[in-house]
Amino acid sequence: MSTTTMPMLETYPKSINLDRAKLAAAIDTLNACAQACTACADACLSEDMVAELAKCVRTNLDCADICTTTSRVLSRHTGYDANLSRSLLEACATACRSCADECARHADMHEHCRVCADACRACERACRDLLATMS
Amino acid sequence: MSTTTMPMLETYPKSINLDRAKLAAAIDTLNACAQACTACADACLSEDMVAELAKCVRTNLDCADICTTTSRVLSRHTGYDANLSRSLLEACATACRSCADECARHADMHEHCRVCADACRACERACRDLLATMS
Amino acid sequence: MSTTTMPMLETYPKSINLDRAKLAAAIDTLNACAQACTACADACLSEDMVAELAKCVRTNLDCADICTTTSRVLSRHTGYDANLSRSLLEACATACRSCADECARHADMHEHCRVCADACRACERACRDLLATMS
Amino acid sequence: MSTTTMPMLETYPKSINLDRAKLAAAIDTLNACAQACTACADACLSEDMVAELAKCVRTNLDCADICTTTSRVLSRHTGYDANLSRSLLEACATACRSCADECARHADMHEHCRVCADACRACERACRDLLATMS
Repeated sequence: MSTTTMPMLETYPKSINLDRAKLAAAIDTLNACAQACTACADACLSEDMVAELAKCVRTNLDCADICTTTSRVLSRHTGYDANLSRSLLEACATACRSCADECARHADMHEHCRVCADACRACERACRDLLATMS
Repeated sequence: MSTTTMPMLETYPKSINLDRAKLAAAIDTLNACAQACTACADACLSEDMVAELAKCVRTNLDCADICTTTSRVLSRHTGYDANLSRSLLEACATACRSCADECARHADMHEHCRVCADACRACERACRDLLATMS
Repeated sequence: MSTTTMPMLETYPKSINLDRAKLAAAIDTLNACAQACTACADACLSEDMVAELAKCVRTNLDCADICTTTSRVLSRHTGYDANLSRSLLEACATACRSCADECARHADMHEHCRVCADACRACERACRDLLATMS
Repeated sequence: MSTTTMPMLETYPKSINLDRAKLAAAIDTLNACAQACTACADACLSEDMVAELAKCVRTNLDCADICTTTSRVLSRHTGYDANLSRSLLEACATACRSCADECARHADMHEHCRVCADACRACERACRDLLATMS
């Protein structure tokens, strides 16, 4: 986990309407998932059987983009908009689940898909944990 | 509008399960909105009364990030996942409406907020038009 | 071209140290190139011969990311840093040339690579045109 | 540090032409810096004296975008292009130095600027360490 996520939350000059520990965990898990998905897409491209992994690459690319954007939105607290955070977290959990399911189908054959599937599952959980504190 | 968005859709080698004209319109409108929001955030930072525009900057930054990600996801058709597209388009329409409303509050005083509010309204409409074809 | 890029430049409240017409052209061309590269990567994934296009996908993904970031940096004028703009424009022109060259190798066989190669060439030119005004 | 960055490098199916430990360190440091810069921009927006921090916000936004893109490019190894990696790492080190310098000017008064300046310095170092192994 990043050593600066929590210090950045703690030095924010106003109040934050969310559980800071869960928020920091979500941000770090989103960033780890985005990186794993970016790397998994690229690893798939270097497999001899890339033709069977085309959908996996696409799902990885979507998940990386959505996790990066969600991490950024959650890193902002000025003018907090619970509606938007919730809606984006729902979309992100959907992306993580799709990507975890797709990677899991190739996890026996490709270690990078196994590692990435785990990162996506952890990220879906972190999104849902944070959502649970927002209702 | 970009002169390459439609040619790229037309040269995609497989079928696309969406109305190509509405899809191209959505992609171009999302990219225009992302640019307007990025520029509006920066213009707000250069106003003397930036303290009153802090929430506007934040809303612009969120909207720019979400529009860029949505444009990318809509530009991919391999292994199409209607659930994810729908969920992300909902989040994006929410972001565009929030940003349009916030910019509209400053539109009388700041031309950049007026232009940006219009771009956000157009983008919310494009997202909802595309969503309407997906149900 | 986007109908809001130039209005956003014109409503920026302070002076801009660059040729506004060349700047707007660069921003629009960068966004068009980012979209073309994102779409070309995805179209390559749907080709039967995707194994021969793996490098093309990767080059497209890099070029899309770098063009999007360069477009954002050029859309900001507050606290302008010529050094950073120049350095990023150089990296972006390098990415566009690599991607144009790679796509051009497949342009006879894949129309999406032909359209994308043209978008990358135009984008390299726009970056270099803007760089030429900055020295 | 992320627990998946190194496993993703280790499961890449082909060879990687870079020192894997330095590469993993660079990727993690880039992601931490991008998060710190995104959070610092937002914290600046919530300070009463935001008008004096406008340039800091802008520098943070640029640095976040460039670090995220550099992290993505470094996470891809298929069809490796040393020229592009070098050029982007140079731009990224420039962005990190600018942002560190700007944040350092406010570090006595704002803890978030102090934490962010440290993250940017670490990131500039990681970029230059990796560059040193590439020549």
